[in-house]
Amino acid sequence: MKDRIIENSIRMFGEKGFNETSIQDVVDVLGVTKGTFYYYFTSKEQLLMDIHLQYIDNLLSHQEKIMENQEKDSKSKLYEIIFKLISDIEKQGLSAKVFFREMRNLSEDHLELIVPKREQFRKNIQQVLEDGIVKKEFRSDLPAEIVSLGILGMANWSYFWFNPSGKRTDSEVSGIFLKMLLEGIQRD
Amino acid sequence: MKDRIIENSIRMFGEKGFNETSIQDVVDVLGVTKGTFYYYFTSKEQLLMDIHLQYIDNLLSHQEKIMENQEKDSKSKLYEIIFKLISDIEKQGLSAKVFFREMRNLSEDHLELIVPKREQFRKNIQQVLEDGIVKKEFRSDLPAEIVSLGILGMANWSYFWFNPSGKRTDSEVSGIFLKMLLEGIQRD
Repeated sequence: MKDRIIENSIRMFGEKGFNETSIQDVVDVLGVTKGTFYYYFTSKEQLLMDIHLQYIDNLLSHQEKIMENQEKDSKSKLYEIIFKLISDIEKQGLSAKVFFREMRNLSEDHLELIVPKREQFRKNIQQVLEDGIVKKEFRSDLPAEIVSLGILGMANWSYFWFNPSGKRTDSEVSGIFLKMLLEGIQRD
Repeated sequence: MKDRIIENSIRMFGEKGFNETSIQDVVDVLGVTKGTFYYYFTSKEQLLMDIHLQYIDNLLSHQEKIMENQEKDSKSKLYEIIFKLISDIEKQGLSAKVFFREMRNLSEDHLELIVPKREQFRKNIQQVLEDGIVKKEFRSDLPAEIVSLGILGMANWSYFWFNPSGKRTDSEVSGIFLKMLLEGIQRD
């Protein structure tokens, strides 16, 4: 039941918004009572926190698997991280929407748990860049922190425009972004 | 008075959120009556629309000035567009916040006016890229549409992290982004 409550809330928060959806709305759709809701969650905000945690923990664990792979070079790792972010829009569209839009509705205490995880995801991109600099795959004269923020921006912004049923697939877009990042758009 | 209402609402919508701010809240701060508000705006949503229009029209007219300048090459134009987006976070922080976060509260009719303007801003970036391809400043084998979306993502995402009082200025960040975009991060 807990999973069904989470699943349905992601849909309702994603479609109508967190503030516009009441606990009553959530339980009505599932045909259960508010008592059932409060058996699993202390509040609507706690439920929102669970959705956020699930989303970022999934991203982080996937990213860590990419980073641990000894057989791939830094470029491939960068590609895979970008691809994960863009392909998740297709696979987890409404979760992404709730994650991007509703963070401001988390309590201070919960924000203190989520913000460092989001920052960890960025730091891991920076780590991939720094490893690539050491291995002489990447140039060393651009600050890895700012570059990591640029990469995250390119990939995350796709949430606002990427259409999984549009003319380009997630892997095509990720490939173009990687080429643009690695080689630059300037004509030699 | 109209300008004062807009100015104060940007602050209140930015700090508390559009749905969390009532017309009463807005007029209370200004010490006027609701009648005054309705003299200038038909609804709170109309006020939100005015804020959106002001923001995007300012961006567009600035961008068009950059594009019309015959003395600058495409690279410089790209730099100036990126710089405009990043520096606006400092200058127009709360307006940017309202623009990014509250678009979903616009009516369908108003969205139909705002969305094409946002799209025009992106298309203009694509135009700068295509002009640069013709002038052989930029390579021709990357689709300008996707590249424009990547650039917009890098620059717009800075809204979520750029700190005007942090260790790097808006022009430094724009410079790093431009270098990364033009030359790529790969080691030659």
